[in-house]
Amino acid sequence: MTSGATLRELIVGVDIGGTKTAILVTEPDGSVRVRQVAPTAVGAPNRAADSIASLVQAALDAAGATPDDVAALGVGVPGRVERQTGQVTLAVNLDWHDLPLGPRLEARLGIPTFVENDVRAAALGLHRRRLFGSVESLALLAIGTGISAGVVLDGRLHRGSLGLAGEIGHVVIDPDGPRCACGNSGCFEAVAAGPAIVARTRAGWAARRNGHADTTAGLHGDRAVDAEGVFAAAAAGDEVARDILESTGKAVAWGIHLLALAYDVERIVLGGGVSHAGEPFIAPIRRELDRYRAVSPLAAEVLRPDLLELLPPGSDAGAWGAVTIARDALSRDRNPASPGQERVVGHA
Amino acid sequence: MTSGATLRELIVGVDIGGTKTAILVTEPDGSVRVRQVAPTAVGAPNRAADSIASLVQAALDAAGATPDDVAALGVGVPGRVERQTGQVTLAVNLDWHDLPLGPRLEARLGIPTFVENDVRAAALGLHRRRLFGSVESLALLAIGTGISAGVVLDGRLHRGSLGLAGEIGHVVIDPDGPRCACGNSGCFEAVAAGPAIVARTRAGWAARRNGHADTTAGLHGDRAVDAEGVFAAAAAGDEVARDILESTGKAVAWGIHLLALAYDVERIVLGGGVSHAGEPFIAPIRRELDRYRAVSPLAAEVLRPDLLELLPPGSDAGAWGAVTIARDALSRDRNPASPGQERVVGHA
Repeated sequence: MTSGATLRELIVGVDIGGTKTAILVTEPDGSVRVRQVAPTAVGAPNRAADSIASLVQAALDAAGATPDDVAALGVGVPGRVERQTGQVTLAVNLDWHDLPLGPRLEARLGIPTFVENDVRAAALGLHRRRLFGSVESLALLAIGTGISAGVVLDGRLHRGSLGLAGEIGHVVIDPDGPRCACGNSGCFEAVAAGPAIVARTRAGWAARRNGHADTTAGLHGDRAVDAEGVFAAAAAGDEVARDILESTGKAVAWGIHLLALAYDVERIVLGGGVSHAGEPFIAPIRRELDRYRAVSPLAAEVLRPDLLELLPPGSDAGAWGAVTIARDALSRDRNPASPGQERVVGHA
Repeated sequence: MTSGATLRELIVGVDIGGTKTAILVTEPDGSVRVRQVAPTAVGAPNRAADSIASLVQAALDAAGATPDDVAALGVGVPGRVERQTGQVTLAVNLDWHDLPLGPRLEARLGIPTFVENDVRAAALGLHRRRLFGSVESLALLAIGTGISAGVVLDGRLHRGSLGLAGEIGHVVIDPDGPRCACGNSGCFEAVAAGPAIVARTRAGWAARRNGHADTTAGLHGDRAVDAEGVFAAAAAGDEVARDILESTGKAVAWGIHLLALAYDVERIVLGGGVSHAGEPFIAPIRRELDRYRAVSPLAAEVLRPDLLELLPPGSDAGAWGAVTIARDALSRDRNPASPGQERVVGHA
């Protein structure tokens, strides 16, 4: 690859979401030169790197720049990633299996590329940007299609020995609960993630129609809804939807309490698609956390008043996380002995 | 305090248990010069430091040494500790509240003293001694009067922002479960710690006598038993005791799965008084972990075959942990910039 030390100053971050891909082209001082959002290219997995490379190229065009101006590219992927090789082991919602995304992007763009799980990248980005205060530890609890946490401890991303740290979506909250995609039953994610909220609400509506539950006339039929639709139904007074969101809030509060006891972080930030509902999402969570605090002095201490934050929608946490991953990797390359950085072998 | 650089080479570790106090006097090369075990002095909290100082003095006498020969004293306490000040905030079973144990021991013995929670100290000691392989991360899950975990990540003790990291005994496993000492209901510890095992077994026996449960003639009455007695009853064929230990094993497996998902450590070591029952304790845990592995590929991966270890009874993990805490504090003092050591301000 060509080298131009004086030119390569931009950092590009790409956040590949289930439906949208966000790209940030950032200056050396951290300011944004260009921000672009495009639909996530679906198509065959073997075309994925081409599609993403095209989006990056388009963003660089808009920035009046070329790949030679870019020091590093960070990519956040909703799935499992081998950070050392840039291989995406599994991204269920994108139907990617063992996709060598990092090497392919490098081959196409000639930019050193660093791939990370999107939630982990976002958590590190929140920390580096001091978005929730000058803290040395935080967890980003992402509630969307699935549930997982990205955890920063002592200023460093905690990935774990298998890269599975923070996968608390699969801790069992109710052994008699719904079957989870992982094969187990009653996982946190099988109760409180977006698809679970929808499935439980639809089951409640079906039961109501069949007279198995309450017989209040439903405001909504058993038509296709998403989590947003369940929040809308609850706002319109639907009792089933309200009950489901209340119990979802209790489950999320349980997860927050678990994170607080396990890691004892300074901040827990709620993010992910479901959290975009805002106040209707967080109100039942706060009620349940207050109940914990009222019954247990230990809970009152560990669930400190400034613990919980809601990630504002549109904060580009994923894309900023990808920028952070790239920036960190660069600073490690330039100063390998730098303390306070996690140890990563780049594949560039 | 007197200083004699050439003399101060021994490290002393004291593990204060609920019933027994273990002391190790160790050489610079890590070998043991003297090991002593004494009943834990009960008495008034304001006499506690005197009692412990006497035990240390007796161990030094047996070692043919004086306090001047000791570089540092580490103390493990079953409770909450402010490590910076050596203050024991709360040790319920010892009835200690805000006891300045570290400063008092320093005043009496003239030895720099470092106090830490016993489970956390033991976890760090297991790591440093490579007792379960050359791993960089491990959790010690202690199941005794309560339940908590000491967690070592990247070779460093993870204490958390409030010193509460690893207190997973208070994650709720069953919202309809027994009331916990913390005030909440259905905490992991309220189901699976020693007193919970005893209480649930006694309730089962009482129900059986009253015909509310099975009517098998009980092998044991509702007399005073401890967890050991429950294991003995199960070994003798008591169905109630067997059921309780089976459900306890399921709860502990849940806790292991939780630790594995949250931290993704290389080893989880089971310790604490209840674990001394050995195979009858661990067999139901292994069965439940095998069930997790069978239904979920993710569980099979995170619950790797070499994950779980049982701490051998008599391994002096607490006293070795106290030695480790003291040794680490010393090496920080001598080499403050040393990486890979947790940052602690000694109060010496």
